[in-house]
Amino acid sequence: MKAGVIGATGYAGAELVRILAGHPEIDELILSSVSFEGDQLEDIYPNFLGRVSCKLLKAEEVIESSDVVFAALPHGVGEKYAAACMTKKNHFIDLSADFRFDADEAVYNAWYDGKTYQYPDLHKNSVYGLPELNRQKIKKRAASGPVIIGNPGCYPTGGSLGAFPALAKGLNRADIPVIVDAISGVTGGGREPSRSFHYPECADSVAPYKVASHRHSPEIARNLAAMAASGNNPAPQLIFTPRLAPMNRGILSVIYIPLTAQWSVTVNNAMMPPSKEIAAKTAEIRELYADFYRDEPFVRVLPCGMSAATNRVRQSNFCDISVHLDINGSTLIVTSAIDNMVKGAAGQAVQNMNVLCGFNERAGLDMIPALF
Amino acid sequence: MKAGVIGATGYAGAELVRILAGHPEIDELILSSVSFEGDQLEDIYPNFLGRVSCKLLKAEEVIESSDVVFAALPHGVGEKYAAACMTKKNHFIDLSADFRFDADEAVYNAWYDGKTYQYPDLHKNSVYGLPELNRQKIKKRAASGPVIIGNPGCYPTGGSLGAFPALAKGLNRADIPVIVDAISGVTGGGREPSRSFHYPECADSVAPYKVASHRHSPEIARNLAAMAASGNNPAPQLIFTPRLAPMNRGILSVIYIPLTAQWSVTVNNAMMPPSKEIAAKTAEIRELYADFYRDEPFVRVLPCGMSAATNRVRQSNFCDISVHLDINGSTLIVTSAIDNMVKGAAGQAVQNMNVLCGFNERAGLDMIPALF
Amino acid sequence: MKAGVIGATGYAGAELVRILAGHPEIDELILSSVSFEGDQLEDIYPNFLGRVSCKLLKAEEVIESSDVVFAALPHGVGEKYAAACMTKKNHFIDLSADFRFDADEAVYNAWYDGKTYQYPDLHKNSVYGLPELNRQKIKKRAASGPVIIGNPGCYPTGGSLGAFPALAKGLNRADIPVIVDAISGVTGGGREPSRSFHYPECADSVAPYKVASHRHSPEIARNLAAMAASGNNPAPQLIFTPRLAPMNRGILSVIYIPLTAQWSVTVNNAMMPPSKEIAAKTAEIRELYADFYRDEPFVRVLPCGMSAATNRVRQSNFCDISVHLDINGSTLIVTSAIDNMVKGAAGQAVQNMNVLCGFNERAGLDMIPALF
Amino acid sequence: MKAGVIGATGYAGAELVRILAGHPEIDELILSSVSFEGDQLEDIYPNFLGRVSCKLLKAEEVIESSDVVFAALPHGVGEKYAAACMTKKNHFIDLSADFRFDADEAVYNAWYDGKTYQYPDLHKNSVYGLPELNRQKIKKRAASGPVIIGNPGCYPTGGSLGAFPALAKGLNRADIPVIVDAISGVTGGGREPSRSFHYPECADSVAPYKVASHRHSPEIARNLAAMAASGNNPAPQLIFTPRLAPMNRGILSVIYIPLTAQWSVTVNNAMMPPSKEIAAKTAEIRELYADFYRDEPFVRVLPCGMSAATNRVRQSNFCDISVHLDINGSTLIVTSAIDNMVKGAAGQAVQNMNVLCGFNERAGLDMIPALF
Repeated sequence: MKAGVIGATGYAGAELVRILAGHPEIDELILSSVSFEGDQLEDIYPNFLGRVSCKLLKAEEVIESSDVVFAALPHGVGEKYAAACMTKKNHFIDLSADFRFDADEAVYNAWYDGKTYQYPDLHKNSVYGLPELNRQKIKKRAASGPVIIGNPGCYPTGGSLGAFPALAKGLNRADIPVIVDAISGVTGGGREPSRSFHYPECADSVAPYKVASHRHSPEIARNLAAMAASGNNPAPQLIFTPRLAPMNRGILSVIYIPLTAQWSVTVNNAMMPPSKEIAAKTAEIRELYADFYRDEPFVRVLPCGMSAATNRVRQSNFCDISVHLDINGSTLIVTSAIDNMVKGAAGQAVQNMNVLCGFNERAGLDMIPALF
Repeated sequence: MKAGVIGATGYAGAELVRILAGHPEIDELILSSVSFEGDQLEDIYPNFLGRVSCKLLKAEEVIESSDVVFAALPHGVGEKYAAACMTKKNHFIDLSADFRFDADEAVYNAWYDGKTYQYPDLHKNSVYGLPELNRQKIKKRAASGPVIIGNPGCYPTGGSLGAFPALAKGLNRADIPVIVDAISGVTGGGREPSRSFHYPECADSVAPYKVASHRHSPEIARNLAAMAASGNNPAPQLIFTPRLAPMNRGILSVIYIPLTAQWSVTVNNAMMPPSKEIAAKTAEIRELYADFYRDEPFVRVLPCGMSAATNRVRQSNFCDISVHLDINGSTLIVTSAIDNMVKGAAGQAVQNMNVLCGFNERAGLDMIPALF
Repeated sequence: MKAGVIGATGYAGAELVRILAGHPEIDELILSSVSFEGDQLEDIYPNFLGRVSCKLLKAEEVIESSDVVFAALPHGVGEKYAAACMTKKNHFIDLSADFRFDADEAVYNAWYDGKTYQYPDLHKNSVYGLPELNRQKIKKRAASGPVIIGNPGCYPTGGSLGAFPALAKGLNRADIPVIVDAISGVTGGGREPSRSFHYPECADSVAPYKVASHRHSPEIARNLAAMAASGNNPAPQLIFTPRLAPMNRGILSVIYIPLTAQWSVTVNNAMMPPSKEIAAKTAEIRELYADFYRDEPFVRVLPCGMSAATNRVRQSNFCDISVHLDINGSTLIVTSAIDNMVKGAAGQAVQNMNVLCGFNERAGLDMIPALF
Repeated sequence: MKAGVIGATGYAGAELVRILAGHPEIDELILSSVSFEGDQLEDIYPNFLGRVSCKLLKAEEVIESSDVVFAALPHGVGEKYAAACMTKKNHFIDLSADFRFDADEAVYNAWYDGKTYQYPDLHKNSVYGLPELNRQKIKKRAASGPVIIGNPGCYPTGGSLGAFPALAKGLNRADIPVIVDAISGVTGGGREPSRSFHYPECADSVAPYKVASHRHSPEIARNLAAMAASGNNPAPQLIFTPRLAPMNRGILSVIYIPLTAQWSVTVNNAMMPPSKEIAAKTAEIRELYADFYRDEPFVRVLPCGMSAATNRVRQSNFCDISVHLDINGSTLIVTSAIDNMVKGAAGQAVQNMNVLCGFNERAGLDMIPALF
């Protein structure tokens, strides 16, 4: 099979190429780049020398020659390629935000610089590609024709997966917000140089940004609502805070989920270390999480006592999750870790292709996380 | 005046020496080290070459020769030195946790490896040295004799300062926990090598640790309760989560404070970007914070639109604070940044000395934060 | 085939496991660890969760059950395992220095803490496993029985490969030393915590260490002499300086090779930028290097104008090499980059296994360097 | 006294402001910025909040109101300000390369984008401001009127200081090049974002750049020649190689100086660890270095056995130097460390002001290097 990547020289695009180059079902890669059309990929990223040699073409040529197409483009420029793929009956997996909001154009418009849908009909039939939420929907749609996938944002992937079991099972009090406090590596900002990602500005420092105003907020809120609804539970409020850390890759989310009385533990003195009841309830909820994700190929619910860490999922498609109960006994604290460029972008896109095409969902994604 | 530092070769002790060496009221430094007794400080830290040359003595010699004594020792070994200082009528500023819990030995015992007070009487008269909370108490006590200061922990400093104004003024709903989610540089772990702080284990990675079980939790909770009480408000519940980031210095805290209805803004659609009402209420609360800290020499309440960042307070005694309102309108999000080794340890200890001794509180602490 | 790893929980051992787990010719891994005998590998390195699950056994059990054995042990403790493997007729690939010096026990003894050979006969028949130097020797020996491989040190790999073509072809003046100035990531120091590799001591800083006294010096010198001899050229003197950089992986070597008059360019004014003659001679030497390594699967000679960089070979078995002529026209400046844990340790060990066993030399080692 | 800084918002300019703000002889700062004219400095660098509040003016206003003027501008735009200062009889300290080459316009032209001198007469009387080379010349010139200082480049500072004693005393063989192999932190690239200094491109990686073609090469060569000439020794050839390391500040140079027979030690077997003769000769040369720099306020010659490290001079104006003899006995290996933003730029500029104005040369520069 031939896989095409439109926008192969951005960070997510290049990571896609790297993963697809080792995918057992992909025979050939067809790549495009607006910035470097006519150049060789390996001239832009010498890492590929001797492994992948590929001329950078026009987007139209990619669509023409490929059996499945990925787009790793800026927001707002890829709809026409999606339309072309639908015409040509090829799946289209979009790593931008353009197809993440389905028919809800107003939300997309409000958060993405006032952009509007150029091909509104396409959005009626696209699917948000978080397999842990929509796998059956993706499969069903693929059974009846070409599919447009809105590949999730990096923060929404880690944040949603950490909260899903609690929301599906109704552990949370609906009247208190769920908080997702996430910290990301700098590759999340992409390949284009800017003050914010200039080495001396972000080295040796941590800072939050876009507090209470990041565009991933509505995407996470929508995911949490959808999962809660799957268990007939009400949608929770969401608070989302992103920070930037001096590392290349990875997102570590800490998620605070207020528990119903039923799932809480009574604590007499929160000035004292956690009691055995806390430990027991933690183990019970951890078991619930492990059950929820038992058949997921890329979610690892860690043993009690461990926390997720970005260096344990580095360069892999895993999402690690750990479960804790707060010292007052009434808030679930979940930690989740992903590699923002893999499960948070390119790896998840390949996972979506695997689901769409009926491949083994692990195909091309069986990397063991790099140790360092 | 002669200043003594017991435990001058740990990270906090050495940072103390560096600050005290530039203090206009200190003429001489008397230093001790158990590990390096008899050596020269500059052999252990060549940074001091040509600037500070000092032989490392016994603790007893330090007490004998100094007018004010700092102790930067492991928890549980410094009480006898405090006792000796009281006898000799010298102030004793302790950077360990031994005097942070006043007479509440049970809490200390429960969180600090079962340690007990060897000199219980000393703890009846020690003062917790967070000047923004206890300045008047420190001054008053100093007026009538030598004082023992329990210098605050690093996390409690940044976390408490960010929450104080809201608690003093009763902005918060008492029935929902305050959350302090903090991320620290690695110097917080001290000078002793260990797996957790081994370069390849913490470089290029972020991870939480001791989730819901860190010993700074009761210290922060106690501070929040004290400040709330000062405004006749009830003590809030606290959730505290520490993380480790790949940087040397700094603590960035994000603090979530649930607001009373009076301080909240009604939001019709939290899927949409923040409204003007949100911005207006944020500015109002920011003003309240600025008023609260107007006379504090080391707290900077940032303009609306900025967030605190550790690289803006690096190598200084500042605590930067920013104020935000969450997208649902009902939770105050505060960010605070300190240098964990300065305002979080050695700088604050010097600030306490300045208060105790009636010096200008800024003396020796007027560093402009390093730009990079 | 079953591969055994003795010492699987050190950094090199764990990296070996990670590579072998994806090797197409290896069906099963048998692992041992002195420190963690009886534990599961994935408890020590949670990265392996869901990918490799393996109990840590005794070294003897590894030898008993494996078809090929790797040892990633401290220097001086593995000879008996080599002996056992020879008896059992299995290849033994040793990542320590024990078999790097062949029969030259005096050099080993002088540089490695006075250790002596316990099984001197083994050293008469071991082979130094730098395939680019000794591939034919390894193959020939493997044809007639089990082989002991002394897997090269990390610095010697990068330093030797960068200098080999010039020495083999006699470009260098023999009367002036060759200089290898190399800088390494911190994983080179291994998994054991120590002051030198404590995060705050090495973050945000660069320092040389063991200047003119590092034990890799005689290993590099021996390699250079061997390659020079292959071209009937005299052995050069060697100067080797290692430095430590704040990064996890990688070694970047800059190698200064004084050129004979024949290979030099006459420069009239070295205060002026390099002339076209410099560029032409550089291209000529670059061509010579490219020819020399034309059939090597893991050496990439970069185009003129590029320099080697550790982030272009990260997580791969490549050695990148670039060639430059100094501004005076008389010294060749070569840069070489490897991943110290792959081509500098575990990857090269697997490459040696591939050569020994007649596998495709690229088997299990076709990783595309990680982009970030 | 009033100090003016033209170009106060670049990295070197801002660092200058930070140092000058604590200088005991400076009462007021007058600042300009083309990019941010009319803004407040503390809005660009919030680090200054509460410490320095200063409106950014035009360059002409700075010159008008200041008693001494610093320029931290791009190369090629500052000559007119120098001319204006001369007219106004004020010293002008230029941090660009414009006045580093004295009357040698051809070299400047060849390396700095073909720029030419607009005010050639100014260059006949400017002084290259490396105090360890030209202190007397600076003083003498200041005695007779306003002076233009060409403040040295960062690499030339560290590289020259490490080589000076050997060249002045004639330790080196003139027929073999001196090699300066230096590695720099990323602030050396300035404040303007670019691909080369984009966080993900330089984090966790080391790479050389502009090998044998960096514009600091002629500046270093000229300095070495000048110092050699001061001892009636011939000018050495120079090879200069810069690398970039993932750290904010600091330059670590390793300098290889081939020794005359008189200063060499005969080594019988360079495969063996260094002999006592090597250690003795090293101590002798170290003593010579210490003597040479005995009266220098900012050069520290380290004890034998130590190497220079950037984290030992961090945030200070020190240059640390260590001395080693190579294993063959015939090459001196010197390591030198500076903070590229202090001794390599802003600190040295202030040192030049101190010399020019007859202040204590240490004034404003007595910082103890930051410990981490």
